[in-house]
Parts: sequence; structure tokens; C-alpha cells
Amino acid sequence: MTGLAPAPAYPWPEGKTSAFCFSVDVDAHAPWLWANRDRVPNLLGHHEQRSFGPRVGLPRIASLLASHGIKGSFFVPAIVAEAHPWMLPALLDAGHEVGLHGYFHELVAQVSDDQFTHALEASIQLFKDQTGQAPRGFRSPAWEMTPHMLAECRRLGLYDSSLMGLETPHSVDGVTEVPVSWATDDAIFFKFLGGGGDMAPPLGTDAVMRAWTEELQASRRYGTLMMLTVHDWISGKAVRAQMLDKLLAHVAGAPDIWIATAGQLAGHHRAHAADRDMVQATLPASPLTHPAWKDA
Amino acid sequence: MTGLAPAPAYPWPEGKTSAFCFSVDVDAHAPWLWANRDRVPNLLGHHEQRSFGPRVGLPRIASLLASHGIKGSFFVPAIVAEAHPWMLPALLDAGHEVGLHGYFHELVAQVSDDQFTHALEASIQLFKDQTGQAPRGFRSPAWEMTPHMLAECRRLGLYDSSLMGLETPHSVDGVTEVPVSWATDDAIFFKFLGGGGDMAPPLGTDAVMRAWTEELQASRRYGTLMMLTVHDWISGKAVRAQMLDKLLAHVAGAPDIWIATAGQLAGHHRAHAADRDMVQATLPASPLTHPAWKDA
Amino acid sequence: MTGLAPAPAYPWPEGKTSAFCFSVDVDAHAPWLWANRDRVPNLLGHHEQRSFGPRVGLPRIASLLASHGIKGSFFVPAIVAEAHPWMLPALLDAGHEVGLHGYFHELVAQVSDDQFTHALEASIQLFKDQTGQAPRGFRSPAWEMTPHMLAECRRLGLYDSSLMGLETPHSVDGVTEVPVSWATDDAIFFKFLGGGGDMAPPLGTDAVMRAWTEELQASRRYGTLMMLTVHDWISGKAVRAQMLDKLLAHVAGAPDIWIATAGQLAGHHRAHAADRDMVQATLPASPLTHPAWKDA
Amino acid sequence: MTGLAPAPAYPWPEGKTSAFCFSVDVDAHAPWLWANRDRVPNLLGHHEQRSFGPRVGLPRIASLLASHGIKGSFFVPAIVAEAHPWMLPALLDAGHEVGLHGYFHELVAQVSDDQFTHALEASIQLFKDQTGQAPRGFRSPAWEMTPHMLAECRRLGLYDSSLMGLETPHSVDGVTEVPVSWATDDAIFFKFLGGGGDMAPPLGTDAVMRAWTEELQASRRYGTLMMLTVHDWISGKAVRAQMLDKLLAHVAGAPDIWIATAGQLAGHHRAHAADRDMVQATLPASPLTHPAWKDA
Repeated sequence: MTGLAPAPAYPWPEGKTSAFCFSVDVDAHAPWLWANRDRVPNLLGHHEQRSFGPRVGLPRIASLLASHGIKGSFFVPAIVAEAHPWMLPALLDAGHEVGLHGYFHELVAQVSDDQFTHALEASIQLFKDQTGQAPRGFRSPAWEMTPHMLAECRRLGLYDSSLMGLETPHSVDGVTEVPVSWATDDAIFFKFLGGGGDMAPPLGTDAVMRAWTEELQASRRYGTLMMLTVHDWISGKAVRAQMLDKLLAHVAGAPDIWIATAGQLAGHHRAHAADRDMVQATLPASPLTHPAWKDA
Repeated sequence: MTGLAPAPAYPWPEGKTSAFCFSVDVDAHAPWLWANRDRVPNLLGHHEQRSFGPRVGLPRIASLLASHGIKGSFFVPAIVAEAHPWMLPALLDAGHEVGLHGYFHELVAQVSDDQFTHALEASIQLFKDQTGQAPRGFRSPAWEMTPHMLAECRRLGLYDSSLMGLETPHSVDGVTEVPVSWATDDAIFFKFLGGGGDMAPPLGTDAVMRAWTEELQASRRYGTLMMLTVHDWISGKAVRAQMLDKLLAHVAGAPDIWIATAGQLAGHHRAHAADRDMVQATLPASPLTHPAWKDA
Repeated sequence: MTGLAPAPAYPWPEGKTSAFCFSVDVDAHAPWLWANRDRVPNLLGHHEQRSFGPRVGLPRIASLLASHGIKGSFFVPAIVAEAHPWMLPALLDAGHEVGLHGYFHELVAQVSDDQFTHALEASIQLFKDQTGQAPRGFRSPAWEMTPHMLAECRRLGLYDSSLMGLETPHSVDGVTEVPVSWATDDAIFFKFLGGGGDMAPPLGTDAVMRAWTEELQASRRYGTLMMLTVHDWISGKAVRAQMLDKLLAHVAGAPDIWIATAGQLAGHHRAHAADRDMVQATLPASPLTHPAWKDA
Repeated sequence: MTGLAPAPAYPWPEGKTSAFCFSVDVDAHAPWLWANRDRVPNLLGHHEQRSFGPRVGLPRIASLLASHGIKGSFFVPAIVAEAHPWMLPALLDAGHEVGLHGYFHELVAQVSDDQFTHALEASIQLFKDQTGQAPRGFRSPAWEMTPHMLAECRRLGLYDSSLMGLETPHSVDGVTEVPVSWATDDAIFFKFLGGGGDMAPPLGTDAVMRAWTEELQASRRYGTLMMLTVHDWISGKAVRAQMLDKLLAHVAGAPDIWIATAGQLAGHHRAHAADRDMVQATLPASPLTHPAWKDA
């Protein structure tokens, strides 16, 4: 990754030339609860909107995947698994992967290293208690990472799926990274809760379908991983499930795309591409210490 | 609503397989007045934009519904009915339902339980005085609810139409809920008042028509209720009425859709589906009290 | 304007069934200067972007109108006319109307009644000095009005073109109103200056052309006035002038549309429709004084 | 540039009737570092997203240009060149132009005149050290300029490419200006980093392709310069490179378009059009000193 020559193509398995992963961040009510942790308000609106996810959205998404024969990766905050103890076992029974997503969807910049580690270990224990097995992967709430979090993933043998420094699997400070992408995240286009905190009105599914169809074409053309990320209470809505059905029909019908879970992608990378794309995430020093900066 | 198995189809009447409700939140000047309740400013711009609703928008919407033979549910803040005493009787005469929408469009988080109840009872009295009958339903200003508000709906026998925890009628803490949806609300796409408080420029009707056409398809496919919500001063504008005309032509021509008022939907649910989808809206405790959280 | 019966059609002249007005708010650098009036910053970026208007944008728009044989209404802040003394005479020479738009594009909520009147009278004097004639119409900067401003328009015999309480000409407190519309204003879709104060990225002309084509269809269908408002430095850009060329071709080719200046619309209304749509802009009292409101 | 008569057509060379320039602001991690200069946070998310630029984005863009036979202008903050010392020589080797873009992507309003000059001179020295030659052009971070910066460009013989007062090359206070345009900048449509600081979700490439296709048509029709500006870490993504490929195919196939670097445009302007469009960027006085303003 030095110079203007393009990197060699990523070695996808089975003669495939690009990859697709269907991931679900099963946030449900967790981000709402985290944001209101100092005082849980007596208001039902947002809580009900998010509760739609475990009630209807997740089953609908699971049915959709089943109808296309696709296995997904479901990253579940432990507090959501705790509130819905059927969830992790049922997802595993259906052949999907379940992965870590914080205990409370705790935001990285709002917790100390100790608090992160304490919550991470409690999450893993809950997953073990509910499923009898340890999860293999971690996805950070809101897709942010620190050097400490990478060190913990390394210590515990977890892959990470939270960063965007490349469009194919790679390693960051020795941790296998299965990268995400904002442009194929449903929340930034569709999330709308009301009450004044929204960025923009939700896009129509026609607009997002056009954008994601071009993403799929580009992924196949450039040999990248298209990591789709949806949320239970957002893409579980009828109109978005209908759109995903169309998108998955494209994916499932393309013989050149390797459809894999994040865990399969991480495993393949470790086995067949571990020696390439090894990134060190060293943060630079402030410009204010640089000789080209003149103090006032 | 536990597990990955999809819920059984909702039992719509008359062999129908989905439902459509045309609802109008007749806000007119009420939200402006509420927002400025501490000091009403000497500015005419927003007030005139909103006054377009009772002057032109509401009659135009009523004509549109009449031309398609559709009855709507009009939720009217009492202060709007007070300022336009012809409104409630005329809507009833035309065969529509009228429902409660706060006295002043008072926002839930800005009133106490006592203030809510006082205003609710005064609203009901005004409806009785103007129409000779009590309204059957309530829609919260800005679609927010508290446990107290649900308790009051239960006490007074009102259905509610403010929450989004399911895509079909259900009950929340024993109150029949006819759910709404941001994605089929006109305000978040079209509302634009100027003066610096707007979220985004208004969308063109072509973009919203495409989005809502997909909503309609999805509602039919998944057997849900499509609750359309428009506002007098927003969708009463010529360009939006023209778009609604096209949308209603689709709806009215579809033999599988049950077109019903919110009151009819609530009545049907109580009579034929009261035993399913009974949600308890219990708010969870803060993560800070959880053993997985480590104090700093 | 009481009840659900639609109002009778507006009496457009010459057998026409709707109207179109091309108006230009020639803001140039004035809003930037007003916003920075306490301290004009030593930064050129926004000033240069806005100076494009008088340099290129206004001539391009004037050529466009000439090519379609359309006369427009140009509302010019006096300070812009002062900085470009060729502007008002040249616009009049080309057959267009020129109207008032504040002296400094001073925002209504930021000036006292006295300051408004002082600036208004100075504006009129400048127009007289530069053109030998008094302007007939006023458009408020940012489209806001107060009762005092209406009283001044009444005193000076000016029509106003700043409010949106109806989609056809009417009167407000006795002042003839030629209404505007956010949905047919270029600034809210295209304005983008950089530096952190923008609401959203500028829309592409394809999206706005679709929206405005539907606006034109709706105006013809419902018999309204389509008041298009563009800005010299925004729609004077090549890509937007190209779009306006297409839109004006539609307008000019429609035999049912009365193409008129704001002054002609006001004159027609006074002569032929003065007895209809007489609005009183009385601002209501605060809800806090209402018996349905219970003090805490 | 006085009066309503359109200006004479710009004298493009070789019988061409419009121009196109492909410019790249190679920001990489520099804006993130500048924004966090008081305390560099221990967070990897944004840094990794931006590091994608030098790793993959820049090589991909260079390949794209090579495949269409187009030479671009790459404006590189010195700190980015310092972190990737292969970059400037490799770009020059491939036939592209490299230009100045601040040392740290320091924002104009946040540095003093002295600090600007100190960083500018250090940037030039680094370019000389790395490439053996001095850069000819300057593009301001975030496209803002002061009179002092123009004076420094004049002193050092640099052209500027940061302002938008005309759609063709011109001069500002004696400095040759190769203008930019927000509407053909990728960042305002596509930039999305997460974490709460974003303006809007990224547009799909289909929407931007439609908008830029109309920009290209308008540029050819009105004889302007279409200055496209992309960023390494934004348009280097697969889906956007795919879109640029389509756009460049249009450009390269049009015989009437002069495809040139910013340096070539500046050189042509000095040689063949230096006597036209000479703008003085004099900032006006505050309205508060004007006789039409009445103190409170």
C-alpha cells in the first residue's frame, strides 16, 4: 500500500471475485437506554419504535434470509439478548452467526478502558450462558475503536468488524478486520425517530435501492467486500424488507459473489491472506508541535 | 411475539389482506402558538402559512376524499376547532371521523400529568359542545405517549393512534392502538416554514410518490396497515393534493385493501383481534444499575 | 373561506386559468453584509460567490427571459442597487419590473419598526433617484412581515409579495398580497456557501426540475399562481439557467397560463378581485391564558 | 461586467468551447488532525476512514485517469506528503500536476497572517525537497481566502484555485484565479464519517451522476470551466470510482471540451486572456455606518 500501483486482487475463495456479507446490528432499545442512562424518561414513543425490532423486524429479516438461503451475522448487545433470551439460540439454530456488540451499546468515547473490558467480558459470559459457546467476533457500537479495544480483541482472539480503512478484510494492529461501510448501512438513510434529534427525513426505498444496486455493481467490478448492515427495528419494516428481498435476489443470483458471514470472512482471511494488508493504526502527533506551525 | 417465527397474518375483515387509513392532523396554527406560548411574536409569516390549512387546505383534502369515496380520520386540536367552529360539524356531515389531538397541540414532554388531563377533558367537552357527541380516539401531538396518557385513554375508553410498536392494530397496556408511521407522514418530507428552524428543504412530490407507492406495495405484500398522515396546511397545497389524488386512485382501485377510518380499525380490533398482540409498555431500568456496568 | 366547500376559481384575465410569475430576489452580497454587520470579516469566499450574481448571473437570467419573451419582477435591496447603479435602469429598460427588498436585506426580527420605516423610505428615495419613478411593490427579506410593515405598505400604496396564506392574490389587512411559495424558491434547494452554515448539499437540477414540473402541473390544475423566485447568484449559475430554460419553455408554450409580473398581478387583483379573499392577520393570544390550560 | 449584456465568450484554446479540469484535494487524515490539534483523541474510526485515501483511493483514481488519458491537478497538504513521501514524486511521474493545499489543511479563519505565511513557505520547501521543483498553484483548505493570502500568492507567483466569483478563469487582485464550484465537489454530497458531525447521509452515485451530467451539459452550453474536485478517501471508494469512470467517458469523448490541469488553465489565462475579468475583491463597509440605518 505504497505508491500509485493498485494492490493485487484480494484472494476470494472458490473462484469468486467479490464478496457479500449480510450483517444485522440488533440494537433494539439499547441505544435509547444508553443515551438516557442518567435518567430513563417516562416516554414510550422511541421505546415502542425500537421494540418493533425484536417483535417483528428480526423474525421478518430471518425469514427473508431463509428464503434466499443466506446466512447472516447478527451483532447483539448483551442487554438485548438478556431481555429476549430466545434470540441468540434461535439465530444459531437457524444457522446464523451471532457476535458481540457491547453490553449496553455503550459508546466508545463515553466509557473508560476498564469499563469497556468489564462490559466486554460480561457480554461474552452472557453469550456463553445462553448459547453454550463463545462468540468469535466483535462489532463496536457506532463503529468506533481505540487501541485498547484492539488489544482486547487480540487478547481474546476476536475478529473486529468496525473499521473502514480498506474495502477487503485486513488486519489492524494484528486483529483481523472485516470492514464495514457507512454507504451500505441502513440507519443513516432510514433511521427516523421523531422528537427533534433526527438528521434528515428517511429516504424512500427506491432511492436506497438505486444506491445499493450501484454499490453491488462496484463491489463486483473492483473485487471488494460489500458489507451490508441493517438494523432490526429499521429494515424489519415492511417497505424495507421488500427492498432487501430485491437486493438479495440480485446477490444470490450472481455466481461471482462469495456470500459469507463475517466469521467466515475472518476465518478465510486468517487462513489465506494473513500476510497482506497489515495496517498499523498509529495516531499522529498534533500539528501544534510541528516546525511548520508558528505559535501566535 | 417471541422467537423467529413470523406472526400469523392479521385478521382483516371482508376477505381483505391489508388496510389503508387516511388520517389528517389538522394542526393549523396550533403548534406555532404552543411553541410561542411564553410570548407570541409580532410576526405573520408562519401564522399565515399555517392559516392556509383551514382556508384552503382542509376543503381541498375533503373534496379529494369525496371524489374517491374515502372517509378519513381528522385529529383536531381543540383550539383549532374553537377558532373554526364550522370545522368539526362539517367534517362529521361529510361522513368523516373527528378525533382528539390535544387542546393546544401541547407537547407531551412539556406538560405535567395534571395539565394533560385538564386539557384532555376540556378538549372532549369542546367536541361534545360543537358536535353533540364524544370523540372515540386520541392522537398525541408529535406522536409521543406516557404511561399516564395511556391510563387516561383507558379510563375514558379512547383508542390511541400515536405509537409504532407494530404495523397492525394492537393493544398497549390495554389501550387499543392504531399505529402510525413516520415514513407515511407528510410533514417530515414536506414541512418547510423558513426562518432557520427547518430540518431540510421540502422533497418534491415525485420523490415522495415513489416512496409511498413502495409503502403501499409493501403494505399489501406483508398484510399491514398503511396509516397515511397528512396535515391541512402542508398537503392541502396544490402540488401535494395532486400527488395524493394519484396515490388514492391506486388505493381505491385495489380490491385487497380495507379502507377504513382509525375508529373503524379500532372497533374491528376490539371485536375480532383483541386477544392478540397485547403489548406491555414497561420501561427498563438504567444500565448504570446493571452488574455489567463498572463505576469509574 | 369558511366551511368545506372549495372556493370559487380565481378570476384570471384573458380566459386564462392559472398564472405564472418569474421573480428574482437580487440579493447579491447584501445578506452576507447584513449577517456580518457588527464586524465585516476579512474573508473573500462568500463575498465572491455572491458577487457572481451582478457580474454574470443577472445578465444571464435577463437573457433567458428575453429569449422567452417573459417580463420578470426583480426585487433589489437598495444597497445592491447603490453598488451597481446600472442595475435598476437596465432592468426597466428591458421591460421588467423592479421592486423593494429592504435597504440592507435587513431581517425583520432584527429591526425595530422605526428602523424598518427609515430604511424603507431611504430605499424608495434611492429607487426614485436612480430610475425617476417609485416602485410599486415590496418583498420582505426572508419573507417575514409584521403588522407595522403591512401598515407601511398600506400607507405608501405598495403591494406586498412575502406571505403564503393563499395560493392566489388576496389582501392582508387591506394590503394586496401576491403570494410567494417556499417550494418554488431556488435558494432552499440550491443555496450552498460552505463554511459550516449550510442546511444540506445543493440538489441537482434534475431533481428540482421534476419537482417544479409537478408544481406547474398542479398550478394549472388547481388554478393557482405559481410564483417562481430565483436569486441572481444562485440560479444565474450555468447549470441552473439551463434548467430554467427548460421550465420556461413549458410555461411559455401553455396557452392557459397568464404570465405576469407581480405588479401586473397586484393591479389585476385590485381591479377585478378586490372583494374576495380579504384576510385579517390577527395574531392569537397565548394558550397560557386559556381556561383549558392549568398552571403547574 | 457592468450591465445586462452577457460577457463575450471565454477564449478557450484549440477551437474548444468549454473546459474541464479534474482536481483532487488529497486531504487524507489532515483535516481530522487539524480539527483535533489541541488534543489528538485516542479514536481510530475517522483516522482509518481517511487513511483509505493514500492506501487505495489515490492509486485507484490515478488508474482511472490513466485509463482515460487525463492529467489531473492534485492539491496535497504538506503533512500528507510528509507522511507519504512516495506521493508527490509518483504523481509527477504519472504526468499530473501537484499543488499546495496548506501544510496541515489549516483553516483560514483559524490562523493568523503570520502563521499562514510560515506554513505556506514550509509547504513550498517540502515540495521542493521531495520533487526538486516548486509548485505553481495554491488551493485553500475549505476554499476560503483573505487579502493577505492573495498578496502572498502574488508575491510568490502562484495561481489560486479557491474562489467562485466567475465560472471561467479570471484574476482577483492581480492573482490568476482558476475557480472551483461546490456543485462539482464530491465532499458535500458523499462525505460521511459518523460520530454526529455529518450534515446529511451520503447521496447515491446515481443521484450525483445525474447532477454532474447536467453540470457537464451546462458547462458545454455556456462555455464555462467545469472544475471537478474529488477527495482521495471519498471518491477513491469503489462505487464512486465506478461513477467517475462513466463521467470521464463522457468528457473524454466530447471534442469541444478542453481537458486541462489547473496549471494549464492558469497559464493559458495569463497568456491569452489576462486583460479580461479582472476582479478587485474589496470588502464593503458595514451597513451600520450607512445613513439609511437608524440607530436604536
